[in-house]
Amino acid sequence: MKITVLSGGVGGARFTRGLQAALRTRLPDGSGGTTADVTVVANVGDDMWLHGVRVCPDLDTLMYTLGGGVHEEQGWGRRDETRRTSDDLAAYGLGWEWFTLGDLDLATHLARTELLSSGLPLSAVTERLCERWKPGVRLLPATDHEVETHVQTADGLIHFEEWWVRHRAALPALGFVQVGLDDAVPAPGVLAALTDADLVVIPPSNPVVSVGTILTLPGVRDAIRSARGSVVGVSPIVGGAPVRGMADACLTAIGVETSAEAVARHYGRRDSGGLLDAWLVDDADAATAATLRDEGWRTAATDTLMVDVPAATHVAATALDLATRA
Amino acid sequence: MKITVLSGGVGGARFTRGLQAALRTRLPDGSGGTTADVTVVANVGDDMWLHGVRVCPDLDTLMYTLGGGVHEEQGWGRRDETRRTSDDLAAYGLGWEWFTLGDLDLATHLARTELLSSGLPLSAVTERLCERWKPGVRLLPATDHEVETHVQTADGLIHFEEWWVRHRAALPALGFVQVGLDDAVPAPGVLAALTDADLVVIPPSNPVVSVGTILTLPGVRDAIRSARGSVVGVSPIVGGAPVRGMADACLTAIGVETSAEAVARHYGRRDSGGLLDAWLVDDADAATAATLRDEGWRTAATDTLMVDVPAATHVAATALDLATRA
Repeated sequence: MKITVLSGGVGGARFTRGLQAALRTRLPDGSGGTTADVTVVANVGDDMWLHGVRVCPDLDTLMYTLGGGVHEEQGWGRRDETRRTSDDLAAYGLGWEWFTLGDLDLATHLARTELLSSGLPLSAVTERLCERWKPGVRLLPATDHEVETHVQTADGLIHFEEWWVRHRAALPALGFVQVGLDDAVPAPGVLAALTDADLVVIPPSNPVVSVGTILTLPGVRDAIRSARGSVVGVSPIVGGAPVRGMADACLTAIGVETSAEAVARHYGRRDSGGLLDAWLVDDADAATAATLRDEGWRTAATDTLMVDVPAATHVAATALDLATRA
Repeated sequence: MKITVLSGGVGGARFTRGLQAALRTRLPDGSGGTTADVTVVANVGDDMWLHGVRVCPDLDTLMYTLGGGVHEEQGWGRRDETRRTSDDLAAYGLGWEWFTLGDLDLATHLARTELLSSGLPLSAVTERLCERWKPGVRLLPATDHEVETHVQTADGLIHFEEWWVRHRAALPALGFVQVGLDDAVPAPGVLAALTDADLVVIPPSNPVVSVGTILTLPGVRDAIRSARGSVVGVSPIVGGAPVRGMADACLTAIGVETSAEAVARHYGRRDSGGLLDAWLVDDADAATAATLRDEGWRTAATDTLMVDVPAATHVAATALDLATRA
């Protein structure tokens, strides 16, 4: 069985770890088998060059989370991290002081930068880095091109990370621009991983700047729409607010209400030209599930808060159940 | 009074720190004044791209030594250094494990790489980094071009640092090649700092791969030969062996004996088409000093071991005396 997940950072990584745990005990097709090939297509819109090294926040969060190296409480970065280099960099008075490079995290950036410098595309670099982390999934960047999300503010375009980390998304966003998108194509294997999937999952990642950025790549929407199997989404909005992060600021910028229902309608139903066959919401949004179900959506509600691995496993198992309940 | 020093790493940095101390108490021209402008022209042949960042060992050793941040016992790198990033990089199984990037040192490399990426030449980058270290000298890279020393071995060319650090100079060197030299010119200010100098100093740096590399740049030899003031050198060879490092392996490769006398003759006397007006050797080579003096060289012998700042101050003061004893 082939499962493909479109992922941002923390939410997608935690979901995928739960998915791996759920798959270890059962297969959703009831076959009694115990194996599934999971491919994760990761957003690269948050990537940036910082002090000359290539930083890929979502790929790193996925590698660390699935590879057992993540800082659990924080959700991203390395456990037992220190910031000696970053602190010393600040003594040079250079910019980007608001973005901290952990000493261990920096090793990943340096390794990546060296491999990129040798001429390897990001997908091959990621495969090489995964030889260490052994995430148990095939981890693909959405594209090998440098496609970076910038935020349109009243004062002009700024990099997404600057808006997100430095301004905590409090600076009003007028829109998002994928710089570099014009020449970009999906990385090798991405489209096939979608069309050939027995199940496509849109985990509770940011619908605008994580999943949305992947969806802007040419061919990705069509590949999902033509996927062999079902497409199931998990709402990142619970009771009118993002579970984590500041997705509300992103949704507002594109004119979408911050609600489980509005995000469902934003993705759309596959039988009506959209992407989803099924939509899993939190118990807090049980009324939304009922409303959508009345319209013919396949929905369910459960506790979607992934506070630990067992909780994430429950969310993933429920999503699997919903996807295969035809 | 203008003094210009042609420097490699540890030896040149320690000498220059002694020179600053010597100048604080007296001026060699006996004027009773207390100021002198010191320019240090640093070798860049050891520079390299490592994991995507630009490492400039000699510039760094000079900044840290003159700026109060050096690891004193080691002679290079930062005090209170750690190696968390480097150790973690090794977990990726990437090459260059023999070259350790300290976490604090890495901050310098990242700052430099970022500034280079912004389009600044190395000389401007160095000036910017020196705003933090305040070395008390004008620190100039010999060139803004990437000129890297490679070592010709039986198995082909390898980067100087690989030969020096990884092989401890034990792999027989057949010669040295400055890769990138064809297009290189001295950095802005280098030639003027030599022709306008009241005193040019060749400190006890490696005559082949430190001073020698600076001398290969077009115009540098001529500028020294036409310098307004004297040119004094301090022998890096004491009693037939290098004080520090493996200069003997370098000298052997270019067919020069490892002796204070042979290095003096290698540099040559300025009144015979060479570079030196005066040559300071160690007490262990007093006989060499006498031999050269009989031939008309201006020489002296003293304790040249720079075991601490007072010792380096003595060496620099003696070199100043010798240079101005006309």
